[in-house]
Amino acid sequence: MTDSPAASRSGTGTVRFGIIGVGAAGSEIQAITRHPHLTIAAAADHDPAALDRFHERFPSAARYLSVEELCASADVDAVFIGTPTPLHTAHTLLAIEGGKHVIVAKPMALSLEDAERTVSAAERAGVFLMVGHTQGYEPVVAKIREIIAGGSLGPLRMINSWYYTDWIYRGRVPEELDTAQGGGVVYRQGAHHFDVLRLIGGSKIRSVRAMTGAWDANRATEGAYVAFLDFEGGAAATAVFNGYDHFHSVELGFPIGEGGQRVTSEEYASARKALAAAGEAGEADLKRRRRSGELRRGSGDPKRYHSFYGLTIVSCERGEIRQSPDGLIIYDEQERREFTFEADRTGRDVMVDEMYRAIASGEPPLHDGRWGLGTLEVCLAVLESGRKRREVFLHHQVAVRA
Amino acid sequence: MTDSPAASRSGTGTVRFGIIGVGAAGSEIQAITRHPHLTIAAAADHDPAALDRFHERFPSAARYLSVEELCASADVDAVFIGTPTPLHTAHTLLAIEGGKHVIVAKPMALSLEDAERTVSAAERAGVFLMVGHTQGYEPVVAKIREIIAGGSLGPLRMINSWYYTDWIYRGRVPEELDTAQGGGVVYRQGAHHFDVLRLIGGSKIRSVRAMTGAWDANRATEGAYVAFLDFEGGAAATAVFNGYDHFHSVELGFPIGEGGQRVTSEEYASARKALAAAGEAGEADLKRRRRSGELRRGSGDPKRYHSFYGLTIVSCERGEIRQSPDGLIIYDEQERREFTFEADRTGRDVMVDEMYRAIASGEPPLHDGRWGLGTLEVCLAVLESGRKRREVFLHHQVAVRA
Repeated sequence: MTDSPAASRSGTGTVRFGIIGVGAAGSEIQAITRHPHLTIAAAADHDPAALDRFHERFPSAARYLSVEELCASADVDAVFIGTPTPLHTAHTLLAIEGGKHVIVAKPMALSLEDAERTVSAAERAGVFLMVGHTQGYEPVVAKIREIIAGGSLGPLRMINSWYYTDWIYRGRVPEELDTAQGGGVVYRQGAHHFDVLRLIGGSKIRSVRAMTGAWDANRATEGAYVAFLDFEGGAAATAVFNGYDHFHSVELGFPIGEGGQRVTSEEYASARKALAAAGEAGEADLKRRRRSGELRRGSGDPKRYHSFYGLTIVSCERGEIRQSPDGLIIYDEQERREFTFEADRTGRDVMVDEMYRAIASGEPPLHDGRWGLGTLEVCLAVLESGRKRREVFLHHQVAVRA
Repeated sequence: MTDSPAASRSGTGTVRFGIIGVGAAGSEIQAITRHPHLTIAAAADHDPAALDRFHERFPSAARYLSVEELCASADVDAVFIGTPTPLHTAHTLLAIEGGKHVIVAKPMALSLEDAERTVSAAERAGVFLMVGHTQGYEPVVAKIREIIAGGSLGPLRMINSWYYTDWIYRGRVPEELDTAQGGGVVYRQGAHHFDVLRLIGGSKIRSVRAMTGAWDANRATEGAYVAFLDFEGGAAATAVFNGYDHFHSVELGFPIGEGGQRVTSEEYASARKALAAAGEAGEADLKRRRRSGELRRGSGDPKRYHSFYGLTIVSCERGEIRQSPDGLIIYDEQERREFTFEADRTGRDVMVDEMYRAIASGEPPLHDGRWGLGTLEVCLAVLESGRKRREVFLHHQVAVRA
């Protein structure tokens, strides 16, 4: 893997990114733009209006109405794929055929077979494939792993995580509410949640026991899940997600949201109420406004805190770790202390940097294709365990590389 | 069951209680004393000093050095058994043979076979057998059940409960730290925790997937567990317990303890530190002082709040319920509101009253022997699932009677 085609091709040291599906890639585009050695070189979208908006921002970048054309371009080293989930496999394969490194949005595919096809193709082609479970790249997660590895709290034994939110009632496009198209919270949020737990857990997951809930017939996809994960190393984890906008887990601690913004107390059930007021016709607009930041929950406090993906308590034999707005709280044998560090990099910054470093060094990224496939396997197992009401054993897991 | 021997025997309308094992029955004695139709008539203990202290408080009550003698007395209608767990089965059988109604402390037995022997014996003898999982009798639990049954929040789907505490480092007698004798948090705290979840869940539990942790070689019993419970009705529950005195779940909400007292912020890891300071020799004294109230965590606020057994979020399809210091917080489709009610009865008050009403009416109590056996089965399944690392299916469950 030391001489990948794209790595040898970008002679200047700058990695040139192509964006496939620009509409949903706003945050990734920002992260690439912020990185000193990455540049936006091209975009492909079937929507000419989206390409026009892209052109206003990146006038010198190439524009393509087809993914094939972008993937054939000699001026693109790596791509970010933000197209709808059912297209991920085909687009990933096209990019790999074109010799591009790939970051594909989560979920990477809708079946293990599809995921395996892309992972194998990337391995054969000698390009790097990463999956954009962006919460797993957040610096707090790496810091938790570092503290556990340090050993002063003893072996990891238990991770319990709750995230009660309003996911199901935020403005959504139809595919997000259709499980068959990769919609619902198991594919869309579990992909973050289980990725974070796998990273903290470290060893392979042996089995999954789960329940999923689709409780609103008008939005008939999974809006909730609860999963028990058994790690080979002996630790167990539970992951609870409920997106029906009643109780919110921010109530339990500090009011920091998923984007790292401070959340102030707001009207109860505001997502559900806004959606009801907008009606079916207004939902796409609601989604656009939320995405653009217009509807972002926030208090006006401009500081960015560490992204808070639910409330997670990490238990080792001799202590606990959990998140604080500015870092982590560590409970050891003697004291409770806070470890703070700057929230100056988002998960997406870390993600694109990880790809950059892989290309620059030729060494595969931590979150490689096999890692991403492992997280997809957990999502699929949660759906299966909920359906069959029994424990599901996993066969495609990998441990975190030391 | 309308003409039980003891019910017909207590002609005055007052039910006369005998206490078997007075040392550990302080709170139950208080609850019996507070009840207008219950009286303390006798006590049995192998420790003459304990009987002397009992005599000072209840000079007209009979005293016995053997359980057999108390159970043969014609002046006792019902007994509370607070002896060490390994003796529960033998003492329960003796009481039933003597025609007494029985409340036995949890865990009721160490095996399903023993539990079945006592339940069957009680059924044959026509006496009532209850198990003292006192947290399950707390009025907040009944109120949650009432709200769910009311139906306005839709069907129950998910219950998630966390209790991070200092159980393992509180002063303990040796049997409490020996799983073979019914020690450790699965038997001693799971018996409360799973009982509460069964009561809220309503339907039978199909299966259990769990992990248990014994993380301190000096106190080599389970100090932690995490369990996934699948209810026949389609709901799932998770129960997390960690008694190693690092993070405490009271941090997450309001600072109310298990006894309903307000807990103020105190020195970090105070239980572990006090134990280390007391040494092996001082531990029994530590336990005595905690039991007597001398070491009770409290702020001086004399008000009794509702007992707070960890943090439990009850999710229905259309809303959530969780506890507040003065009652419950209900999150429905439109608003978050608090439902308050007086915390004027403890779980033990409800428990002894339930026994009184059963005897007076001839109708079996809600928490009868078969109910208690079901909770023991969950405890045993949690231990088994943790040991075998697989899902365990249950066969002795009963649903909550409507």
